Amino acid sequence: MSSPVTFKDSLAKTAQHLETVLDDVLPKPIGHQAVVAEAMRYAAMGGGKRLRPFLLVQTAQLFGADDAGIWRAAAALECLHVYSLVHDDLPCMDDDDMRRGKPTVHKTYDEAIATLAGDALLTLSFELMASSSEDSARALSMVKALAVAGGVNGMIGGQVIDITVSEDARDEALITELQNLKTGALIEFGCHAGAVLAGASGDDVARVRRYARDMGLAFQIKDDILDVEGDADLVGKAVGKDADLGKATFVSILGLEPAREMAAELGERAKSHLAPFGKDADILCATVDFVLNRTH
Amino acid sequence: MSSPVTFKDSLAKTAQHLETVLDDVLPKPIGHQAVVAEAMRYAAMGGGKRLRPFLLVQTAQLFGADDAGIWRAAAALECLHVYSLVHDDLPCMDDDDMRRGKPTVHKTYDEAIATLAGDALLTLSFELMASSSEDSARALSMVKALAVAGGVNGMIGGQVIDITVSEDARDEALITELQNLKTGALIEFGCHAGAVLAGASGDDVARVRRYARDMGLAFQIKDDILDVEGDADLVGKAVGKDADLGKATFVSILGLEPAREMAAELGERAKSHLAPFGKDADILCATVDFVLNRTH
Repeated sequence: MSSPVTFKDSLAKTAQHLETVLDDVLPKPIGHQAVVAEAMRYAAMGGGKRLRPFLLVQTAQLFGADDAGIWRAAAALECLHVYSLVHDDLPCMDDDDMRRGKPTVHKTYDEAIATLAGDALLTLSFELMASSSEDSARALSMVKALAVAGGVNGMIGGQVIDITVSEDARDEALITELQNLKTGALIEFGCHAGAVLAGASGDDVARVRRYARDMGLAFQIKDDILDVEGDADLVGKAVGKDADLGKATFVSILGLEPAREMAAELGERAKSHLAPFGKDADILCATVDFVLNRTH
Repeated sequence: MSSPVTFKDSLAKTAQHLETVLDDVLPKPIGHQAVVAEAMRYAAMGGGKRLRPFLLVQTAQLFGADDAGIWRAAAALECLHVYSLVHDDLPCMDDDDMRRGKPTVHKTYDEAIATLAGDALLTLSFELMASSSEDSARALSMVKALAVAGGVNGMIGGQVIDITVSEDARDEALITELQNLKTGALIEFGCHAGAVLAGASGDDVARVRRYARDMGLAFQIKDDILDVEGDADLVGKAVGKDADLGKATFVSILGLEPAREMAAELGERAKSHLAPFGKDADILCATVDFVLNRTH
């Protein structure tokens, strides 16, 4: 296993390089529509763990690729994730005032600009993904996969379930489905895209996707745990909100200790899928530990 | 020139076939997230002139193509157009209650579902465009072009200008820029995609794009004229709204008669770009007359 220092360096370096890529690909605030480019930059730059692009880049590196196309794919994935945050924070959805330690986009600008900035980030995401490989067929397959992961049977489907299914109708199966869609689909896409763009075999693509599925669910359970015991300053958004709203979470349904155990088990299973790669997968294994041990 | 009957038959037949394609490609309302698929269908099915997909299909036919990929591209373009209507109608944007003769999506469902249904239509649009040709490079180039036409320097940019630039700061140049972005970009994309997917030469692609640019602006001027003199029942949405809001339009800036003359001149110029195609371009020429003579 990598030491935690090596992992954190790697995560920080990825976040840092992603920042320069985002600065390069996000539209410049020019013309009469400059405000929407500003809002896109406000939402996308300088925040977050960048876990999804990190997974994409690390998976691509596992299979020997680390070119400009990989980084455009990573930026595409982050832009899609950020658009979902901007729209989810809107008053008509989760109505959040803070995100990544600063006021949400609709608070800093307004709801119309937040809606449009989200739309523009989603649109940009596909433009970037279309430039993710010199191999047209490969780039095209990832455009399709991104649309599936972000669509009605992926992230959007999860958000719809989250805002429409009443709390008392949620059991463990439903919350698992919800989280696999809402959070899991994009995390899985990160590993999927990294492997495919790097030219991995079908078997290896399947392995990293299984890893991502288990790790993604562990990630979400940890999120629920952090909402109960996290520190708002560290987490960067309001905590205790789930309980205040009477929300059904893995913690409210399973209890805190069993939720922690389930996350740990999923983490171990996630790592086991990477066993065939030996030490080459150390950083992806360390990612599991990072996800489970994070304090925000 | 085609007779108006032939043109209207052609428009109706395209709309009819597009309906079956949309029914096929839109997600079925199943699972816990069924409501968002319902809202997507409510927004996309059974309404509108389907002018953008008509232009795409007619342009493709001009160059000899009319396969399933062309129709998926047409459906992609319509889904992108419909998403923009759903989001533009939201209370935080244009706040419209009626669209295509029925209550807007956020009126029938709610704002959250309307936001997500729009997001899902945009996402689906790219999934469909990625399947628009067996030639990966061609499909990929159209994914990129759609993202540009729908992005910050296209449709979204136009909407941002429309909601942020004060009425008294709008002169003819600004309104022209606004409309070229907000409406023109997607109309031009329709002809662009039809030509590229059909394998047209670079010169021919340029010809139909010039046609689309002039026709698109004529279309928008006519829209402004209809807002002044149209019948709400025919137009399918509120009329007289621009004047009530003190909105700067081609009509308010140029006057009704000069606006009508400008639209007619643009229409003639649009047709002139198609002269090299002779009778093969009859339906695209008739489209200009239809746009200028429509009552809704």
